[in-house]
Amino acid sequence: MDFQKELMLKQELINRRLEKIINEDDAPKKIVEAMKYSLLAGGKRIRPVLAVSICEALGGKIEDILDFACSIELIHTYSLIHDDLPAMDNDDLRRGKPTNHVVFGEATAILAGDALLNYAFEIILKEALDKNKYCYLKAADIIAKSAGIKGMIGGQVIDLESEGLNISIEALYNMHRKKTGALIEASCLCGCIIAQKEDMTDTVKEYGKNLGIAFQIVDDILDYEGDPKKLGKNTGIDKKNNKSTFVSILGIDESKKLAQEYSKNAKNNAKIIDKSGFLLSLTDYLLNRES
Amino acid sequence: MDFQKELMLKQELINRRLEKIINEDDAPKKIVEAMKYSLLAGGKRIRPVLAVSICEALGGKIEDILDFACSIELIHTYSLIHDDLPAMDNDDLRRGKPTNHVVFGEATAILAGDALLNYAFEIILKEALDKNKYCYLKAADIIAKSAGIKGMIGGQVIDLESEGLNISIEALYNMHRKKTGALIEASCLCGCIIAQKEDMTDTVKEYGKNLGIAFQIVDDILDYEGDPKKLGKNTGIDKKNNKSTFVSILGIDESKKLAQEYSKNAKNNAKIIDKSGFLLSLTDYLLNRES
Repeated sequence: MDFQKELMLKQELINRRLEKIINEDDAPKKIVEAMKYSLLAGGKRIRPVLAVSICEALGGKIEDILDFACSIELIHTYSLIHDDLPAMDNDDLRRGKPTNHVVFGEATAILAGDALLNYAFEIILKEALDKNKYCYLKAADIIAKSAGIKGMIGGQVIDLESEGLNISIEALYNMHRKKTGALIEASCLCGCIIAQKEDMTDTVKEYGKNLGIAFQIVDDILDYEGDPKKLGKNTGIDKKNNKSTFVSILGIDESKKLAQEYSKNAKNNAKIIDKSGFLLSLTDYLLNRES
Repeated sequence: MDFQKELMLKQELINRRLEKIINEDDAPKKIVEAMKYSLLAGGKRIRPVLAVSICEALGGKIEDILDFACSIELIHTYSLIHDDLPAMDNDDLRRGKPTNHVVFGEATAILAGDALLNYAFEIILKEALDKNKYCYLKAADIIAKSAGIKGMIGGQVIDLESEGLNISIEALYNMHRKKTGALIEASCLCGCIIAQKEDMTDTVKEYGKNLGIAFQIVDDILDYEGDPKKLGKNTGIDKKNNKSTFVSILGIDESKKLAQEYSKNAKNNAKIIDKSGFLLSLTDYLLNRES
């Protein structure tokens, strides 16, 4: 298996669907433009790639999960737009382009975020209606919970509350398990649920957890020593915003070791889930990424 | 039927459920506090009252739709929090209390709005899962669409774009049909769908449309000549924000006549939907309200 080629194929498939996924009839042009600006700004599409790959590895069809997987990318994108707002992280660069509020103004950026979150559920519910299978409802329920106050939004609140504080490593784990981990884990689980391989749930959950933490540690490392040009966003943001990170608490060497460790665990899970080797390579790729 | 007593009973039922509806386990305290601050700040609960009443009038049970109806109030509340933000309408008073961002700060207010929208879908999906009936999915689909870019958010975008412009009465209708009308109509439709009385869909839709417009015209009238103390919010906001309203385009007398007209049409629909007379009285009450 040629991993890079396979990854690109999946990303292209997702990008093509994302381009078409917003039905523009009867919607004001400006909001669609603002939504698409951030949605189609590139990005690795990690969450939908995970959902699609795991579904496929477990015997499901890509078409069964493609729209659903794309809806997760909409949720991820809304969270980035709102995170970047002046009242939040106040970032002006994302994926190498000015952030949404810099281009469209704060009011439209807030509404574009709201609209992407809402549209994700419009897609999810349309899929559940069209397919009329209980597994879609189960997957939808998991996505909704992972994005809410017990998941992503909860983590974001803890993040805001922790600014300027010296938090413990346990508190940092808890924050990231919610802020980044929950949606990554949910993406993996959806693949398993829509493929209707419930006996793999525990392993897939475990994979998502390990990958989520490894992913976040790498994120912290890249903010500390990454190349802004390759990243397409500013670095040193965590330090500027007085945020505790794996690097600030454990140091750079220890953080790298920890990322390796979680990644190793994730790779052990990946071998069980996907015999083709794609998920294994994807896990390695996410550990070694430069953006 | 004692309308006032019946209305109060329904509002209390909804308020009691709203108080309990957010499961706080494992969620950061601050976000739950901010969500509840706006959610439990009073309000007439018109949308859930409509959903519950129409469901009941058409032979459904209140318990079948209560959580679902409450989820619509969460969506309505999120839209108010985001509308009030400094980048949007910049309002500091709502339902007689300081607005969410005044109390909790902008970042938390944005997240509390996001969280309420997301939580609405968490409830809706839990209901759809628990009840496992196709009608819940259909109702969920209608709610999602009515809240999105073709409905409420779309209307909000048109509203922002129209500030300072002299828009036509047709453009004003279109904006309000989306901004306020869509979610009101969807609330009514959910009552019909969950009661599984599909043959009443057209009449209920018609009722929702007429009521939605009447409601918005009254809103414009109250902003023009209402009592801020009774309203619990500042008046003259539309003028301050250079917004076109029914009053600014048609004048106060013509607007009152128009509200009567739409209300009369809605009452004709109400008589067909609800033989008990409650929906008829509710329509009158909404026309003659002072807040």
